[in-house]
Amino acid sequence: MARPLIALLTDFGTTDPFVGIMKAVVLARCPDAAIVDLTHAVPPQAVGEGAFLLERSFRWFPGGAVLVAVVDPGVGTTRRAVVAEAHGRTLVGPDNGLLYPVVAADPSARAYAIDVARLGLPVPSRTFHGRDVFAPVAAELASGRLRPPDVGPRVDALVPGGFPPSIQAGGVTQGEVVTVDHFGNLITNVTAHPSLLGATVELGSSSLPLVGTYGEASPGALVALINAFDVVEIAQRDGNAERFTGLGRGTKVLVRAARS
Amino acid sequence: MARPLIALLTDFGTTDPFVGIMKAVVLARCPDAAIVDLTHAVPPQAVGEGAFLLERSFRWFPGGAVLVAVVDPGVGTTRRAVVAEAHGRTLVGPDNGLLYPVVAADPSARAYAIDVARLGLPVPSRTFHGRDVFAPVAAELASGRLRPPDVGPRVDALVPGGFPPSIQAGGVTQGEVVTVDHFGNLITNVTAHPSLLGATVELGSSSLPLVGTYGEASPGALVALINAFDVVEIAQRDGNAERFTGLGRGTKVLVRAARS
Amino acid sequence: MARPLIALLTDFGTTDPFVGIMKAVVLARCPDAAIVDLTHAVPPQAVGEGAFLLERSFRWFPGGAVLVAVVDPGVGTTRRAVVAEAHGRTLVGPDNGLLYPVVAADPSARAYAIDVARLGLPVPSRTFHGRDVFAPVAAELASGRLRPPDVGPRVDALVPGGFPPSIQAGGVTQGEVVTVDHFGNLITNVTAHPSLLGATVELGSSSLPLVGTYGEASPGALVALINAFDVVEIAQRDGNAERFTGLGRGTKVLVRAARS
Repeated sequence: MARPLIALLTDFGTTDPFVGIMKAVVLARCPDAAIVDLTHAVPPQAVGEGAFLLERSFRWFPGGAVLVAVVDPGVGTTRRAVVAEAHGRTLVGPDNGLLYPVVAADPSARAYAIDVARLGLPVPSRTFHGRDVFAPVAAELASGRLRPPDVGPRVDALVPGGFPPSIQAGGVTQGEVVTVDHFGNLITNVTAHPSLLGATVELGSSSLPLVGTYGEASPGALVALINAFDVVEIAQRDGNAERFTGLGRGTKVLVRAARS
Repeated sequence: MARPLIALLTDFGTTDPFVGIMKAVVLARCPDAAIVDLTHAVPPQAVGEGAFLLERSFRWFPGGAVLVAVVDPGVGTTRRAVVAEAHGRTLVGPDNGLLYPVVAADPSARAYAIDVARLGLPVPSRTFHGRDVFAPVAAELASGRLRPPDVGPRVDALVPGGFPPSIQAGGVTQGEVVTVDHFGNLITNVTAHPSLLGATVELGSSSLPLVGTYGEASPGALVALINAFDVVEIAQRDGNAERFTGLGRGTKVLVRAARS
Repeated sequence: MARPLIALLTDFGTTDPFVGIMKAVVLARCPDAAIVDLTHAVPPQAVGEGAFLLERSFRWFPGGAVLVAVVDPGVGTTRRAVVAEAHGRTLVGPDNGLLYPVVAADPSARAYAIDVARLGLPVPSRTFHGRDVFAPVAAELASGRLRPPDVGPRVDALVPGGFPPSIQAGGVTQGEVVTVDHFGNLITNVTAHPSLLGATVELGSSSLPLVGTYGEASPGALVALINAFDVVEIAQRDGNAERFTGLGRGTKVLVRAARS
């Protein structure tokens, strides 16, 4: 069997040892695992932004990878913990919308509610299911000792949520800013292939041509480009677009294809 | 033999490549090791806080793990470098109190002073024993080529230090704030099991019931809870308790069990 | 064969999931790899500082390691992507000076231009060659499926750059500040062995004896020492030398050996 691969995405930060403790728990049960930090800098409790980053990243992991996502304002309440099979990967996390966009995009996806008692896990703490539930379950799945249907009852549908999808009609796509990175770049939910270069991007009072690289704008100018997530991003060259425009999460954006 | 597992806890930060260089040295000697970052954000030279984070984290690592801790204001002086066996794990670091709380809690613990010359290591630099002493010794221990008694002479007792223990008498535990996390939460040395829920926590001019989750407080209110370290923490819901209360490290706290 | 070892040095930061995506791409092709983060905090597009950190770090990696460096303001332009063999390691990155100091110091080094089409890689994005070019090539090299000459045509010489070398004449070395760490320490390009202790370090209006540890200065005083990179550094004890002196990158420094 290939070496088990586990990815982690959380809002825990890396200042505290919580991510390291999750890894200790994983390696105690699955010593051969490779563990990849996707990010631990999701803004605290920002389920939608976590969902976006997970959706934009999962496809780069090989089939069989186990992706654990923990942005979990409902920890300690009755919200479900789930395991989902989608796109050939296995996802583990709270059922609060975080996994929804990835799972909803695969018509043959299946999800299961984690039954802690059935798995023989100790009673989890009320604040740290990353350590007490998600890490051990991910390790058992990655090691092959558990298959997703073993973790608990089938779930018909995950709680919807995550981030809003963009809507395409004719040559126009309507989307919105879903996250702002630490450079102040406004990142939208509009996916874009290079064939879209030259489209017009409208946001706030700006109308910008969609280009391929930052370098195509003059210093200080706003630029709309296809970024490393393969979505439309509005940046200010050598600046901070969020501060410059006063716009942010939730701002609507329209992308009109060049030929429409 | 199980795959070697090495944990790192330092005050080096992750901006500079020093942690990466330590890992290179480890992997050069023990290529199969899994290396887990516990934290590298211990405040510079804060031995007590490093000791607290190590003590709260070590138990999550499987038996046989090697935990390397480097918060080392005395590097380059004559302070000892030590290896200790305690609780089925191996600890490596300076003998300045950092390892003391973990080692002192195991009556059958044993410690050894690292003799660099006996081990045939090059003369270490005066500023980076993480690279020159602790990483190579940890790798040799993790690989099984060295056992702890091989590193040098037995040490009867480590230099005491670390963080102060809490004191329990009857139904009252007296402790103090030992660290403040980056959310401003005041974290104490009072360990707490769920059976303590409902106890009264006194700190500064506040008297708070001990609850299980942040969510049980109203926005802006102070809350005393059992946190992910399984200790009593004082937080401000949606706020910064350190700023709100003006209290910090060293503040005394009293926890009175509900039935006393 | 030894376990493949891949090091990463970038200016991507760790807030966004880009480093994690690179690791996913590496592990999909080379599941057994150990991946070490050297740093991802190179100042954005600071090729010279990235080159310095790479040059100071590479020697700690065992022979056979693959070091990937991505500080790449020219991504999406016609700048070459290269693989170099030097000092028994393999380096992968843009040909913009980043790899130059390491490669130039090995007279028997060889470099090759990466030919994406020859390797059968998908057409890379215009903004993220870390994911689309450097990670897959590094993984193929580390796995042993590709050797450096397989990636494309031989390159006679890399584009010069990186950071300026220091110049030694008699007992005097002339260098400059090449980076400033997050403590405000002024770090120079003057390498120093312990035999240089006692030399005189001149910088701005200061003339300081070269010592071995921070502790040899009084609080608040400037101190010139041999740091963990084995170069001359000017620090302010318990302070920030950059702010205190008003000096920074590019400031000239003279080191006069004690016996000259």
